[in-house]
Amino acid sequence: MAGKMAVGVLGATGAVGQRFVELLDGHPWFEVVELVASDRSAGRVYGEAVNWKISAGPPAAVSGLVLKGLEDQLESRVLFSALPAEVAGPVEERLAAAGHAVFSNARNHRMDPDVPLLIPEVNPDHAAMIHHQRRRRGWQRGLLVTNPNCSTIHLTLALKPLCDHFGLRAVLVTTMQALSGAGYPGVASLDAVDNVVPYIGMEEEKMASEPLKLLGSLRDDCFVDADVAISATCTRVAVRDGHTEAVSVALRQPATLEEVAAALAGFRARPQALGLPSAPARPVVVMSQPDRPQPVLDRLVERGMATVVGRLRPCPVLDYKFVLLGHNTIRGAAGASVLNAELLKVEGYLE
Amino acid sequence: MAGKMAVGVLGATGAVGQRFVELLDGHPWFEVVELVASDRSAGRVYGEAVNWKISAGPPAAVSGLVLKGLEDQLESRVLFSALPAEVAGPVEERLAAAGHAVFSNARNHRMDPDVPLLIPEVNPDHAAMIHHQRRRRGWQRGLLVTNPNCSTIHLTLALKPLCDHFGLRAVLVTTMQALSGAGYPGVASLDAVDNVVPYIGMEEEKMASEPLKLLGSLRDDCFVDADVAISATCTRVAVRDGHTEAVSVALRQPATLEEVAAALAGFRARPQALGLPSAPARPVVVMSQPDRPQPVLDRLVERGMATVVGRLRPCPVLDYKFVLLGHNTIRGAAGASVLNAELLKVEGYLE
Amino acid sequence: MAGKMAVGVLGATGAVGQRFVELLDGHPWFEVVELVASDRSAGRVYGEAVNWKISAGPPAAVSGLVLKGLEDQLESRVLFSALPAEVAGPVEERLAAAGHAVFSNARNHRMDPDVPLLIPEVNPDHAAMIHHQRRRRGWQRGLLVTNPNCSTIHLTLALKPLCDHFGLRAVLVTTMQALSGAGYPGVASLDAVDNVVPYIGMEEEKMASEPLKLLGSLRDDCFVDADVAISATCTRVAVRDGHTEAVSVALRQPATLEEVAAALAGFRARPQALGLPSAPARPVVVMSQPDRPQPVLDRLVERGMATVVGRLRPCPVLDYKFVLLGHNTIRGAAGASVLNAELLKVEGYLE
Amino acid sequence: MAGKMAVGVLGATGAVGQRFVELLDGHPWFEVVELVASDRSAGRVYGEAVNWKISAGPPAAVSGLVLKGLEDQLESRVLFSALPAEVAGPVEERLAAAGHAVFSNARNHRMDPDVPLLIPEVNPDHAAMIHHQRRRRGWQRGLLVTNPNCSTIHLTLALKPLCDHFGLRAVLVTTMQALSGAGYPGVASLDAVDNVVPYIGMEEEKMASEPLKLLGSLRDDCFVDADVAISATCTRVAVRDGHTEAVSVALRQPATLEEVAAALAGFRARPQALGLPSAPARPVVVMSQPDRPQPVLDRLVERGMATVVGRLRPCPVLDYKFVLLGHNTIRGAAGASVLNAELLKVEGYLE
Repeated sequence: MAGKMAVGVLGATGAVGQRFVELLDGHPWFEVVELVASDRSAGRVYGEAVNWKISAGPPAAVSGLVLKGLEDQLESRVLFSALPAEVAGPVEERLAAAGHAVFSNARNHRMDPDVPLLIPEVNPDHAAMIHHQRRRRGWQRGLLVTNPNCSTIHLTLALKPLCDHFGLRAVLVTTMQALSGAGYPGVASLDAVDNVVPYIGMEEEKMASEPLKLLGSLRDDCFVDADVAISATCTRVAVRDGHTEAVSVALRQPATLEEVAAALAGFRARPQALGLPSAPARPVVVMSQPDRPQPVLDRLVERGMATVVGRLRPCPVLDYKFVLLGHNTIRGAAGASVLNAELLKVEGYLE
Repeated sequence: MAGKMAVGVLGATGAVGQRFVELLDGHPWFEVVELVASDRSAGRVYGEAVNWKISAGPPAAVSGLVLKGLEDQLESRVLFSALPAEVAGPVEERLAAAGHAVFSNARNHRMDPDVPLLIPEVNPDHAAMIHHQRRRRGWQRGLLVTNPNCSTIHLTLALKPLCDHFGLRAVLVTTMQALSGAGYPGVASLDAVDNVVPYIGMEEEKMASEPLKLLGSLRDDCFVDADVAISATCTRVAVRDGHTEAVSVALRQPATLEEVAAALAGFRARPQALGLPSAPARPVVVMSQPDRPQPVLDRLVERGMATVVGRLRPCPVLDYKFVLLGHNTIRGAAGASVLNAELLKVEGYLE
Repeated sequence: MAGKMAVGVLGATGAVGQRFVELLDGHPWFEVVELVASDRSAGRVYGEAVNWKISAGPPAAVSGLVLKGLEDQLESRVLFSALPAEVAGPVEERLAAAGHAVFSNARNHRMDPDVPLLIPEVNPDHAAMIHHQRRRRGWQRGLLVTNPNCSTIHLTLALKPLCDHFGLRAVLVTTMQALSGAGYPGVASLDAVDNVVPYIGMEEEKMASEPLKLLGSLRDDCFVDADVAISATCTRVAVRDGHTEAVSVALRQPATLEEVAAALAGFRARPQALGLPSAPARPVVVMSQPDRPQPVLDRLVERGMATVVGRLRPCPVLDYKFVLLGHNTIRGAAGASVLNAELLKVEGYLE
Repeated sequence: MAGKMAVGVLGATGAVGQRFVELLDGHPWFEVVELVASDRSAGRVYGEAVNWKISAGPPAAVSGLVLKGLEDQLESRVLFSALPAEVAGPVEERLAAAGHAVFSNARNHRMDPDVPLLIPEVNPDHAAMIHHQRRRRGWQRGLLVTNPNCSTIHLTLALKPLCDHFGLRAVLVTTMQALSGAGYPGVASLDAVDNVVPYIGMEEEKMASEPLKLLGSLRDDCFVDADVAISATCTRVAVRDGHTEAVSVALRQPATLEEVAAALAGFRARPQALGLPSAPARPVVVMSQPDRPQPVLDRLVERGMATVVGRLRPCPVLDYKFVLLGHNTIRGAAGASVLNAELLKVEGYLE
């Protein structure tokens, strides 16, 4: 691990925590040196304490690590937080104040006025808020950056090129979200098999607000929301991984179908220019087959880091509509945070 | 069966045909006296020829009937057609010309200018087209009436009271449709388990056009489409029965949430006034729990003949949005046709 | 309810409790007059407190009942217990001591030496233990009777006629059990979708021991186990209701396939002779189609009160093998208890 | 591809054919140079003709290949056959006669007296039958080798070490097989969701006969069956990939649980000694957790080339019982054939 940066994972035994551990295994820049869990598991060996749900077992490199507790002294420069919202808030602040660079998947600080809600392809310039954050909070080396909700990330990746090329007036989206989005044990099997649950607590509110910050601007140390009307209906379906979203958009300028398709397929941004290790070659992949994307076939396109768009066609009510799919625990959660850390490392925030 | 009207089922071995057979078992007005199938099955005993998929086996009353072929002489006053679209077109016309009252679930004649596309709660007055149909085609006792596509029926049942009270400008709908909608064998299990298929052939076109005829008017022997913009995205999910639809509507007149809820919940129409045997007491049932309706819990509300609406709330892009659920092979197919026949019997068309 | 016997349900908000409530709705002999839940729910109206998972909502007749707590005074002659094993033990004893006739689905007292483990078709004579039970415990009117585990009931119903006709030496069974057997929330959806869990805690032990008591005899106030070797492997599959079991048996006397089939299909016992309201006409239903029984088609045969057997054929290792299916929360739990109560009412134990 | 051996895939568009294509992509010894399909698809570009169901799309290296027909001239030294049984029989013989080394997954020739039914870990010595096969049939360079049925392979891999160490008297197995085993479209979703189908045509017969040849011996150019009684019940469950099997065995010699576990876990054979590219490091992987193996977690252990065994414990009827899991289209089909070809290449049969 010569020269690799030491990182830790908070909430390492949960569903998103496991995904962090998996994605960081063999990472070229980061090396997991500490795993942190609730006090209940602290002190146990990770490979024994974790109820690993991704594959047959956790990576050998970290299986032997002894879990630390949230109150223990941590040594990593970077901490990835998969903490549940019930505890994430004050813990993340405390750790950032103590000098750690905290990259959080929790919802608690996403809408804080001095915390970047970051997607490297969408609003990499928002990272500059960190200077203000440090000044305001008196932090020297610490920082706190968040990634959006799993449904929001994929929606916003698809909206960004439309916003840039044609302006965006309104978005109407219905999601069919995967079971893993609720963690483990999460959704009861009797609510999943042969069923759709047409409601996910707090999810529609997040989808209506987070994209506005992401597509908005940073002016004079303030985030200014984008002016887009968003209406979301969020449902849960019997899919293990991969959120599907049916999206209709109203644009501010006229655009042909070909122009819209070209904007989506041609979308490249900072992570692609920088060649970040976790960056997908194509952040938005456009498929032309009539029955795609599908979770079981397409959720691992670009190693789960892309948003896959299909069925692009005119919308008789708004302007255009399409279906998108994205892996909810890779690009929609842990992978998003890892990419954020890669961006900030390259940009010098982690020195 | 003293005084019961003799009826037959065309396509009796298929998925919708089976549902016809089940719903007509013990019907107070109709008695199944003949079952018709493709020439391949004709001559076989129904109970042996059918691959019954609704329960352990077909009703005893019809299990012993010998299947007739499409070319055989039929004797029933009423014929319910569950024929596949590949053969339904000319067969249904021929049988209507021969004096049968044909109630079809096939798509072939739905948009014909002299064929009623009928939902008794929505456009019972369209039945009057039968007079013109008979005149134009030279039919004496025969008639041909169709019911809409399974997704359309439930959507239109929910739209009708909104249309009546507030006017309807636009509808944006995303469906999560059940597997039984594709018949048997229909959807491959490898396309269903752990998956969503974001496409159903021809379905979006039907949903964009059929409601316009249903919500439109009959003037001077012509159907005049309603002026509503409809945009549909149709997907298939791993649910056995029950289509879920996320719907957003733009109204022509202002309405409060309470007024919209009252219009939906208070909706009653001709079948309820007439007390038709298959009519639901409430054609639209409104639920207030935040996570309803759900297919596994609610698809048999009102014996599968109602449209269940939940999650009614304002839509930030259009005016209001809600989620609806309806049984796709009961009210969405066979039950719709049976209710049409009940209406026409009461109104004197079957004499 | 003129003349109906007052009954209550303990644990009325859980999965099995709900099934009790459903099965007792409209029962010709019993009338639910009180519903009992944990102290957390006590005092709330049943229709609001229960997370009803069987259909759109609980029966109207009991929705308005106010839930009692386990410490409250109860008035019903008969109490059906769907209590979790963690609390059932002492509560059921206390209530029986207080004079109630307690019919329990919990495992706690099943193997008690003075408690009948009862299947009315299998060992109705074991009810006589109640006399000894009352003497020994000093109970006047109270009594405690249990029904077996859901997998055991269906297995034992199929074994009983084989035992009677040919003697039984060994049984090897692999179960594929439904999700509802674990209650709600029970099995996590991530453990169910696209998966089999090859283990159910304590289940194999129950299947290896309970049938021995059921198929055994009652001599001199003692239960004597049957002499049968039983080996069970219990797995969980993505089925909502209905346990499937692959069974191989070794008999003590030679028997032809036809004799075995006749013994199974011809099985009738005390509940059928008595015409008990919940008794299936045929406790064991034999199907001859090669691909049956199947949960989705056959779990409601005989209103869920029968064991459905198919694929009967020679076993190259033991003697014969077959596949059985039974509804796990109807005949496998609540329905079993209701039938026990019906038997004991007819036999005069409830006076 | 310097020095790589040219190979082709017969039936390349089907489910197993796709798995061959996937496994051979980047193979160190073999290079796919021709893909063969039914005449219906011949002449089309593979990437367009195939309905690829493994991931987002087929490997780039072969997507551009033009599909050949079964009657076309083929040039590959090795042909992997994923042909359906309806056509495989004579086609495979003709191609072997024409000088190709044919490795078939079809059932047609498995039990032929001069055709090896081969699992490299189980009966590598059976490859010697090829000399007799060539003599008898007058083939110079051609050969025909088969791999067993998917359920049989995994069962036999687990039985082999038991057979070697303790002798094997009887096996009783119940399978819970994955949907992909039936190909595409294969099992209808209405037969899969919320269901178990307790029957798979011909499967039990294969499981009762193929292991006898595999565990048997080759003497004087004849295969002699092993003397083991096998009883199988085969069922289909709603799992995409990975067959689960509940197995009970009777041994010929006494053995402790520890000895049985050690025999299974310590099993190594010719492919491991030779370091064949597709050979798993451990052909049988033994897990000690009580609830494993599970398809969703363990089917890709050893890249899907191992049989995973868990729940080893005494059987009250036979001697020991356990649950095994194996990937049915990797080790259970295409991977089995590829490993057979690797073995025969190393052993000089492909020169």
